[in-house]
Amino acid sequence: MSGKITLGRYMWERLHQVGVDTIFGVPGDFNLQFLDSIYEVKDLKWIGNQNELNAAYAADGYARIKGVPGVIVTTHGVGELSALNGVAGAMSENVKLIHIVGQTTRAMQEKHMMIHHSIGSKPDHQMYNKAATGLRFAAAELWDVKTAPKEIDRVIKECFLQSGPVNVYLPLDLSAEEVDADLLKTPIDISPKVDTAAEQKAVKAITDALSSAKHPAVLIDALAHRFNATSETRELFKKLNVPFFSTNMSKGLVDETEEMYIGLWNGEVGTPGVKEAGMASDLVLVLGYLPADTNSGGFSRKLDDSKTIYVNPFEVIVKGTSYPNTHLKSVLATLNNSLPQTPTHKASKPQLPAPRVPNDLDAKHITQSWLWPRLMSYIRPGDVLISETGTTSFGLCDNIFPSNVRFQGQNYYGSIGWATPATLGAEVARLEVDQARKEEEKEEQGTGQGRTVLVTGDGSLAMTIQEIGTMIKAGLKIVIFIVNNDGYTVERMIWGAKQAYNDIVPTNYAHLLPLFHHPDPERSFHKAATKEELEKILEKEEVKNPENLQIVELVVPKLDTAWRLGGQLAVRGEAARKYLKEEGFVDALGNWGLDEGGGVGGVKWA
Amino acid sequence: MSGKITLGRYMWERLHQVGVDTIFGVPGDFNLQFLDSIYEVKDLKWIGNQNELNAAYAADGYARIKGVPGVIVTTHGVGELSALNGVAGAMSENVKLIHIVGQTTRAMQEKHMMIHHSIGSKPDHQMYNKAATGLRFAAAELWDVKTAPKEIDRVIKECFLQSGPVNVYLPLDLSAEEVDADLLKTPIDISPKVDTAAEQKAVKAITDALSSAKHPAVLIDALAHRFNATSETRELFKKLNVPFFSTNMSKGLVDETEEMYIGLWNGEVGTPGVKEAGMASDLVLVLGYLPADTNSGGFSRKLDDSKTIYVNPFEVIVKGTSYPNTHLKSVLATLNNSLPQTPTHKASKPQLPAPRVPNDLDAKHITQSWLWPRLMSYIRPGDVLISETGTTSFGLCDNIFPSNVRFQGQNYYGSIGWATPATLGAEVARLEVDQARKEEEKEEQGTGQGRTVLVTGDGSLAMTIQEIGTMIKAGLKIVIFIVNNDGYTVERMIWGAKQAYNDIVPTNYAHLLPLFHHPDPERSFHKAATKEELEKILEKEEVKNPENLQIVELVVPKLDTAWRLGGQLAVRGEAARKYLKEEGFVDALGNWGLDEGGGVGGVKWA
Repeated sequence: MSGKITLGRYMWERLHQVGVDTIFGVPGDFNLQFLDSIYEVKDLKWIGNQNELNAAYAADGYARIKGVPGVIVTTHGVGELSALNGVAGAMSENVKLIHIVGQTTRAMQEKHMMIHHSIGSKPDHQMYNKAATGLRFAAAELWDVKTAPKEIDRVIKECFLQSGPVNVYLPLDLSAEEVDADLLKTPIDISPKVDTAAEQKAVKAITDALSSAKHPAVLIDALAHRFNATSETRELFKKLNVPFFSTNMSKGLVDETEEMYIGLWNGEVGTPGVKEAGMASDLVLVLGYLPADTNSGGFSRKLDDSKTIYVNPFEVIVKGTSYPNTHLKSVLATLNNSLPQTPTHKASKPQLPAPRVPNDLDAKHITQSWLWPRLMSYIRPGDVLISETGTTSFGLCDNIFPSNVRFQGQNYYGSIGWATPATLGAEVARLEVDQARKEEEKEEQGTGQGRTVLVTGDGSLAMTIQEIGTMIKAGLKIVIFIVNNDGYTVERMIWGAKQAYNDIVPTNYAHLLPLFHHPDPERSFHKAATKEELEKILEKEEVKNPENLQIVELVVPKLDTAWRLGGQLAVRGEAARKYLKEEGFVDALGNWGLDEGGGVGGVKWA
Repeated sequence: MSGKITLGRYMWERLHQVGVDTIFGVPGDFNLQFLDSIYEVKDLKWIGNQNELNAAYAADGYARIKGVPGVIVTTHGVGELSALNGVAGAMSENVKLIHIVGQTTRAMQEKHMMIHHSIGSKPDHQMYNKAATGLRFAAAELWDVKTAPKEIDRVIKECFLQSGPVNVYLPLDLSAEEVDADLLKTPIDISPKVDTAAEQKAVKAITDALSSAKHPAVLIDALAHRFNATSETRELFKKLNVPFFSTNMSKGLVDETEEMYIGLWNGEVGTPGVKEAGMASDLVLVLGYLPADTNSGGFSRKLDDSKTIYVNPFEVIVKGTSYPNTHLKSVLATLNNSLPQTPTHKASKPQLPAPRVPNDLDAKHITQSWLWPRLMSYIRPGDVLISETGTTSFGLCDNIFPSNVRFQGQNYYGSIGWATPATLGAEVARLEVDQARKEEEKEEQGTGQGRTVLVTGDGSLAMTIQEIGTMIKAGLKIVIFIVNNDGYTVERMIWGAKQAYNDIVPTNYAHLLPLFHHPDPERSFHKAATKEELEKILEKEEVKNPENLQIVELVVPKLDTAWRLGGQLAVRGEAARKYLKEEGFVDALGNWGLDEGGGVGGVKWA
């Protein structure tokens, strides 16, 4: 391409160059003209969402699966503010997101015109931009066509480096001005500038510490995924061959079927022996740590800094000594290079006590203690699995995942409603990623037959339910499990178990598919209240290998929940445990699996 | 009541004292405990919404009909940000709204704990509060129980005085601390402190100007409604007995069946003679002016300041001279008192040319030129009528309203999706207002049989569609007209008439009612594509006097629209008119009713 192109076109071409193949958003009268240019970019697609918050969630899901920015377009004021909570979620969880706002024209702004979507009699059209200041890593406030291309390039780069949201503010008239197409010939350098000396000092400190440890272990966490270091992490495990642990948010990031996978180390809220195995290690290498309450058993995972190495996004800390100015992905790559090709030591693995046995195994109806392992056996390698905040995110963690399951939830930010639109974005990304793999003929085992599976709850689904329409319109073959427990069960567990404010609008999900003109609604909606019913559904060909979007409604008792969620609350103390007991929540493990006396004991090294 | 009550209870009692009978919102773990106190306040109700943006819109609709603040409760971060666009809309349109945010505990905030819904490894829990700074008139950032009651009182007062959003930030632990119940015995003084001298100067300047005018006229606008001056405005018309005009946003505010009502003065985009009649007046008294593009025919209503009096919320301007420090409602009351009880002059009314005749009157299908007058004859005194931004808000304005129709749209802020949840709030408010009137035995004519009617479009409805579930759950007998024109027609008219980004998700509305367990779905859903079909539907008893929520789907051609909307765009210039013509939009009046040569001429004073 040469000659002149519009600035709008330039922006889309740049995004496409860094791997973005789909743009999400909602049209509005200050972005329509530059939406046209999307269609001019080869292989760049537009998916319109039902509202802007949903668009932001969809872009978030896309970014998590593809490792490149999710991109949304909104319009001045009404659109950009509606998306803000979704953008803040990306900030909280270090998800790459680019929010492009179509602004009023520069003349309208300079004259402070009372254009619709504004505030006041002499409106400042940039006030919404100002509101978002703390909720992004960078912003390109475009005004002059001479500097605009560089500004666009700068924030795209920042989005990758910081792994989080950046904003582009594009006045409508400016989007039509022209820039030199030759600018596209120099790719944006999205790789971090590595301070080699700093990195080598850090890596040496890590290898020194590792070599002097007797029982080292690795705790992998979510930020390793966010900073695109999944493959480096996987290589590290192969080379180290030491016990490794996941967190709620890092489940599935490495292969849990590996012999050295111990389990989900979630402080006091875990299966027997996992915490003790972690605590018994004399050195824990922690990758991409994100110790939020919901990702640490309510802050009950106590790490002793004198026995811990943290590889954080921009810093390594070895036994309390900081090595700054590093980059997580680069540190892991260099660390991998410094390790022997195959482990030189014999693997030493702690042996764990037997798992606990739920006391409601005989129930005929669907219990939560039965549901989560059963659902997991439906999941297969290559699947994308999205969990909603609440019961489901805790329940799904309670399983060993098949290899190559791409699992995502929004545990830290925890904005209910996120999961449904995020699943739309995740499925779009999965199709793009898997297609690219096929084309490169380096398909990993199982990924070619992957599906995208959403597990959500009735309360969360209601928030963003219309996005199922976008999925159907796009012909996506997503499988949606809805845990229908008659309201906000997670809230009931915290407070107001029987209060009306925790009730939601009763919903007959059988009408969801025909509402959005699903092509085969009767055969694609399934409902189970008993284990037997669910077993039959999970064996159906259309549920196993869907040709259309499928919904499986799971009717479960209002006061039943994943024990991990009960444990997360019960760990707060006696008052919380008393409340749960008195309100009659199902506690299938007794004391929510929290063993009295602070330990199950008996961790032995093989 | 005496003794001690919790701060949460104090807040609800205070709100109830100023006329709030329903609280909207979404429960979250940082507000649950103080939601309990709602049930302790006699006659205070809770309505949970399907998400927080919808809650904000609902509270906005409630406030517009009741004249007291709409109140929403959200939770830390995820909830408060989701509501933000709805709150900004209230700011833009001067709607009284109180946004109560349940925050993390003070200890969590002081320790910068990584509690879910936060951002970063050492989170500032007040960052969302900071983001909202420009989008509210005041905020009570509660921290100390000693000062908290006064702070709550202060922002409630500010909400009334400024007529716009205020925020209350309430840390969860603080909500449970106790205050003296006796504090409730002193009511909050919500009336403005009037500078009597300033006001009298202003009123004298108005009466002097009026007495020297030959053909004075009144243009009433939306802020007269927002600052609760509707009754003063109505009284003023009776006393002045001069021609009066409305704007899009003030339709229905005074009785349009009065002889002296001339019409909707919308600059160049109007029915023949209305603009000329306005321009021919030698003095225009403008009440509560809000001259946004969408409320002024795209800034084409040219007022000559030397012949104009503006009564603004806090200032009067008489022929260019400012009289500051006044209050709109108080000025009008004082002005009314200074005028003779009955008009001393003979009324003089301009005579207008005949209205234009659409050229598609013979069509069998539903045309927009036929639809809006027909729908208006369905509306009756006492109804609340809510219009969505887009085709409907322009279409509905094109009629003479029955008396006592409470009409609301969000024309300035124009956030599509607003209308559906706003209708929920409006209906809740209507029931409360009408019940109170009955109890006071001073029921106005017709208000006792009022209904709440929503007219929305398919694109807008999708944004917030789940709130219909809340309506059904609450048993509200709302009538919803859905203009189904296959996408964002208002966007198509601006740009990209045939572009895919202006398409939406096809929706079969017949499934909406059963989706939310409507008690009588088959008899309550109606669909019309022809005039004959709609005539039959509008004659059905269940549509005229609904016992349950009713949906009437109106199928209209994609490129047909209200001529006022076409006119609003065509007035921009030749390029816009060419575009509309080339893309094939239906122009039933020819040139969108914009008469060539700048005037139809011939306005005569009777």
